Amino acid sequence: VTSLAPDLERLLAEFDARRPAAVARMVSIVENHRPGFDVALGLLHGRMGRARRIGITGPPGAGKSSLTVHVARSYREAGLTVGIVAVDPTSPFTGGALLGDRIRMEAVALDSGVFIRSMATRGSLGGLASATREVADVLDAYGFDRILIETVGVGQSELEVARTADTTVVTLVPESGDAIQALKAGLMEIADIFVVNKADRPGADKLRMEIELMLGLRLGPVLRPVPGHHGVELQEFVNPAKVARAAATADAADQWTPPVVRTVAITGDGTDELIAAVDRHYTYLERSGELRQRRRRRLRERVVEVVQNRMQQRLWEDEGTNAWLETQLPAMEAGERSPFAVADTLLARSADVLSSGRPT
Amino acid sequence: VTSLAPDLERLLAEFDARRPAAVARMVSIVENHRPGFDVALGLLHGRMGRARRIGITGPPGAGKSSLTVHVARSYREAGLTVGIVAVDPTSPFTGGALLGDRIRMEAVALDSGVFIRSMATRGSLGGLASATREVADVLDAYGFDRILIETVGVGQSELEVARTADTTVVTLVPESGDAIQALKAGLMEIADIFVVNKADRPGADKLRMEIELMLGLRLGPVLRPVPGHHGVELQEFVNPAKVARAAATADAADQWTPPVVRTVAITGDGTDELIAAVDRHYTYLERSGELRQRRRRRLRERVVEVVQNRMQQRLWEDEGTNAWLETQLPAMEAGERSPFAVADTLLARSADVLSSGRPT
Repeated sequence: VTSLAPDLERLLAEFDARRPAAVARMVSIVENHRPGFDVALGLLHGRMGRARRIGITGPPGAGKSSLTVHVARSYREAGLTVGIVAVDPTSPFTGGALLGDRIRMEAVALDSGVFIRSMATRGSLGGLASATREVADVLDAYGFDRILIETVGVGQSELEVARTADTTVVTLVPESGDAIQALKAGLMEIADIFVVNKADRPGADKLRMEIELMLGLRLGPVLRPVPGHHGVELQEFVNPAKVARAAATADAADQWTPPVVRTVAITGDGTDELIAAVDRHYTYLERSGELRQRRRRRLRERVVEVVQNRMQQRLWEDEGTNAWLETQLPAMEAGERSPFAVADTLLARSADVLSSGRPT
Repeated sequence: VTSLAPDLERLLAEFDARRPAAVARMVSIVENHRPGFDVALGLLHGRMGRARRIGITGPPGAGKSSLTVHVARSYREAGLTVGIVAVDPTSPFTGGALLGDRIRMEAVALDSGVFIRSMATRGSLGGLASATREVADVLDAYGFDRILIETVGVGQSELEVARTADTTVVTLVPESGDAIQALKAGLMEIADIFVVNKADRPGADKLRMEIELMLGLRLGPVLRPVPGHHGVELQEFVNPAKVARAAATADAADQWTPPVVRTVAITGDGTDELIAAVDRHYTYLERSGELRQRRRRRLRERVVEVVQNRMQQRLWEDEGTNAWLETQLPAMEAGERSPFAVADTLLARSADVLSSGRPT
């Protein structure tokens, strides 16, 4: 058992007593990897797992923040507490708000049953997904019923953030090519629920149809490569068997077909339907055993992540290692030694540094 | 010295003989981390460093691909060979082209002095930035004069990709809030040159001014926090000293002020100015010593990256480690052991696996 710094011990006691200031301080310690953050997270580990984590992702401008606010407000009306982690650098939560957005945010932020933390974009060591998950862990351990993770759905790190949620909501708006771009960006694969936001705009039906087409639910147009041609050509055909099968299995416990929910971010229309879909998805996760599997997978990934951070930290906090690497630079610059050769030698001389943890 | 598989040895000989098919095969081996990729990259290391690497980044829809094509064509007209690495999942290079774009791409792609490789988005192990750099390394070693790296400038991994270039061109289009979003996404910090693309559209002058304002070149409006208020307020003032200083030092060898170049992607207008700016930046890099510093930093980062991949690989390819981790999952699920405790134990029992490299 690692010994605990007195101030951290005091903070944990305040956290246990559910003092609101304690959660903010704990989040800051964890987010910035201040000394003892890992000890604290380790101690909180046994209290995690009660919260439902909902990722809200999508391209910039899809209205994710407004949607997050509406969902948070609905949960509050149902008597649930809500933690919000905003990872989107262009999100109003992080300061880029239009006035109307900001006013809506602040109304939510002033509610003591809501905790909002916006995360700055950060370097790769430790990583954005890792930090986001850790902050969500703190909120979970504190006892928030729902944790909303808002993240812009472009880029690899951001997709990883989405994977830390139990339910991932992919938000799109009726604009040309949005469904295709989402497909290419990998959003289609991670979606448990689709939201067509700004559904009062023209093109909403078309977008909904595109999403459903991509999910293989409807007509099922097939992208068939045409010989002697560099592109692909679209050939439509109806596959009634597939449509019937999808309809029959939509409510089965062992299968989930991502529904498409229409919302209007400005008015909040569709929020209830979205929350109902999130609840249905959670029921599916529980009944099918998928929830346990996802959480097991997250624990496994979590160990991999901690191991990686620990290795990096032990290696590069060692002055000897850094000094030795500096001596190797001239030979690498001259093209005489490759980074691979240097890396292998470095690892061979660092066995003891890597395996022996010092108290943090 | 690690022994080389016979087919890899043959490939390297063909690569040396500058057979075009060899570069494509080598790129595939490296991109997919096939067995021996590290040995091959190690052997090629001494031949790298001749190419100039130019990153072209910006938000989706900024016309990066068209710009890349125009730049590539201009270099070809000047008798230079060009490698293109496209990392943008929404790029026409990766298949999402409109017909006009596609025709322009193909004209370039059919030129034997141009090599194009589009990279799929990939998982975090190994990483996108790492893979992109390695592919660029292969093209560099093969002898391409210019390497253009097209990457969508949203998301952490993508910014890392941009950092592998000698010169980073940030492309924006006159649309509302684009400069602000770019600032927030971290693009302002990595830009060596700005391009205002689609400069024939309304708002191009405004965007150019916004960029220059942000660079602190012009009026220098200052974001001043207002007490008792959650937002910030904009207060404009002119700082003549700063403007004069910037103008005086713009051509000095030891300082670089990112220029703003206007282009029209459809017609190619402004391409010559962009290429001239890239050349000026390279001259600055060389004269100021910054080129050497950047390349040193890249070599250092490269070792860190290889070390990280090697550690991960050795650890998780070890069956014993994985089997042991599985035995720890129930206690973690029950909240009895934390991922931190499991990670520490895992590292303590894996010292030998980590330090001893097996031949790859």
